[in-house]
Amino acid sequence: MAKVLSGAGLRGQVAGKTALSTVGKSGSGLTYRGYDVKELAEHCEFEEVAYLILKGKLPNGAELQDYKARLKSMRGLPQALKDVLERIPASAHPMDVLRTGCSMLGNLETETDFAQQQDVTDRLLATMPSMICYWYRFSHDGVRIDVETDNDSIGGHFLQMLHGKAPRELHEKVMHVSLILYAEHEFNASTFTARVCASTLSDMHSCITGAIGSLRGPLHGGANEAAMAMIENFTSPEHAEQEMMGMLERKEKIMGFGHAIYSESDPRNEIIKGWSEKLAQDVGDTVLYPVSVRCEEVMWREKKLFCNADFFHASAYNFMGIPTPLFTPIFVMSRLTGWAAHVMEQRADNRIIRPSAEYTGEELRPVPPIAERA
Amino acid sequence: MAKVLSGAGLRGQVAGKTALSTVGKSGSGLTYRGYDVKELAEHCEFEEVAYLILKGKLPNGAELQDYKARLKSMRGLPQALKDVLERIPASAHPMDVLRTGCSMLGNLETETDFAQQQDVTDRLLATMPSMICYWYRFSHDGVRIDVETDNDSIGGHFLQMLHGKAPRELHEKVMHVSLILYAEHEFNASTFTARVCASTLSDMHSCITGAIGSLRGPLHGGANEAAMAMIENFTSPEHAEQEMMGMLERKEKIMGFGHAIYSESDPRNEIIKGWSEKLAQDVGDTVLYPVSVRCEEVMWREKKLFCNADFFHASAYNFMGIPTPLFTPIFVMSRLTGWAAHVMEQRADNRIIRPSAEYTGEELRPVPPIAERA
Repeated sequence: MAKVLSGAGLRGQVAGKTALSTVGKSGSGLTYRGYDVKELAEHCEFEEVAYLILKGKLPNGAELQDYKARLKSMRGLPQALKDVLERIPASAHPMDVLRTGCSMLGNLETETDFAQQQDVTDRLLATMPSMICYWYRFSHDGVRIDVETDNDSIGGHFLQMLHGKAPRELHEKVMHVSLILYAEHEFNASTFTARVCASTLSDMHSCITGAIGSLRGPLHGGANEAAMAMIENFTSPEHAEQEMMGMLERKEKIMGFGHAIYSESDPRNEIIKGWSEKLAQDVGDTVLYPVSVRCEEVMWREKKLFCNADFFHASAYNFMGIPTPLFTPIFVMSRLTGWAAHVMEQRADNRIIRPSAEYTGEELRPVPPIAERA
Repeated sequence: MAKVLSGAGLRGQVAGKTALSTVGKSGSGLTYRGYDVKELAEHCEFEEVAYLILKGKLPNGAELQDYKARLKSMRGLPQALKDVLERIPASAHPMDVLRTGCSMLGNLETETDFAQQQDVTDRLLATMPSMICYWYRFSHDGVRIDVETDNDSIGGHFLQMLHGKAPRELHEKVMHVSLILYAEHEFNASTFTARVCASTLSDMHSCITGAIGSLRGPLHGGANEAAMAMIENFTSPEHAEQEMMGMLERKEKIMGFGHAIYSESDPRNEIIKGWSEKLAQDVGDTVLYPVSVRCEEVMWREKKLFCNADFFHASAYNFMGIPTPLFTPIFVMSRLTGWAAHVMEQRADNRIIRPSAEYTGEELRPVPPIAERA
């Protein structure tokens, strides 16, 4: 007989093994392959962390240089994929664009053997920023951009394509930090989607396409977009406090606070909050950052809810001139590393993921002839 | 602390509730909403069963007529989707085509509110055969087919587009049976993928796109294609026996036998086997069907392994002139009903599916400066 689990959503139930990360082991920590994410965000570039997550070790200087050069060389999009992106309207959900772009690439450059998994992953890491920016600039500005810039980092390349000019050093640094913070997070719903798909021994593009679809859901990705939509309405800290108190009284859902796994704080918050403050000073902001800080204070005072990784990402991305609908696609550019590493891990020690269900439906009954049905 | 489960792959673990089907409750049974699949396959059309699975009741005559007319009216493909399908090469994996087609449709006809879920599902049921046949005929034969035939069933419509002429009555009947047999199967890996995606409150196209990617895996869909690839090499029952004994001796994997849940037999096998025999008589086959029967005998005698739903589907589809690479896409056209019904069920009583993992990686360690790394 199947065992009935106590919690819905498999909460607290072990669904497999991983060597990739720990989440909340000490209440608030996050480690990638044993390294504290705070240290990684302080000292590393995103490509260093992607290398770590995917290959199991931090690269030395030569390895990092080679890996960045390799990714840089893989950014071009096949014409057939550009044709597809040009047929997606400006009104589309940007996550649907990436889901479709990733799936289309799977038709053109199919993974036919698992020996290709690192190459396929590198290609996806290199092309995700190209795909989203090519579609965005074509559908919104009517231009066919060059997706092979001379910028050597994924985050910088993204900003350069988006804005049509080389990014400032501060912005490129914040993109490294942001992409590092979102890179990996154990068995969250999108990663688990990728692993379920991988467990049928399907191809990498299928696994990543499915994961993008799950990250699209408002309970998963998209919290930073929802936070932005809220804070951009507040004209001052006082206004923010007044509005939030009303939302709390009306029991409205406020995005960007609390977490399914962390119980005390989200270790990623203090990092991105610090960078958001630097960006605010840099642009001379006197509203968005102080508003965000007041929101944090109100939620803690009233609900003992802490900011998660998403909340200060909203203002940080905004200060860098990134349109709100592209926030979750940046999450994809980053989390892709975790998804792919989990697919590789699942493949290395696989059993098809096929749970059971508790049946709550009708008992056995005969099929009535169609003429006798109500 | 998270609880460690006994079995890998969540086997035997309850991951949620369903009222849609029971699998192997009495060792070999399969029921959809309380009705035995054998009775449904004998008495019903596929659209009747799709209606049952999606809406909870068997339709009466008028309801069935309306539903079929509705599905028939929704078969057309937007030009942008045709443009995409025309850019997918003939060498692509047909499941990648459907994954991409479904994802692209999500850009053009996005589900923006769950109130649209039945409409979006009907549209997908109506267009999946159109998508696969449009791509197949364009890439293989260079023709742009009309995807709006006058045939009023999904299976008949598929055969008519594929072969360019109205299907025979026997073939249309077998398509009904086949689509009914594959329509729903509890928490299998592709359905579970759809539910994990749905649990983030993502859209229907994301859920179905993800499920297609999981069904693509050789451990899940594709067993009928693998069975076909094997049996078409056998020239006689004696040859089949000789070859299979060799494969068993070399411990080669033989697809189309045994099942993760059923322990004694697969209730779908005797049904499709009966229809395969009728089709064999109809085409005057003296090789493929006797070869298939011998394979079944050898596997039972040597390994006590029974044929699952896939094995006799191989010969049945072949007798109807369906190319082997399109076998798994037919599975999609059918299982789509189960996937969508599970998405609706998950949405109606949702908690995000977010299990935990057992950590097997490195202990906490400091990040070494890049110059000091090996």
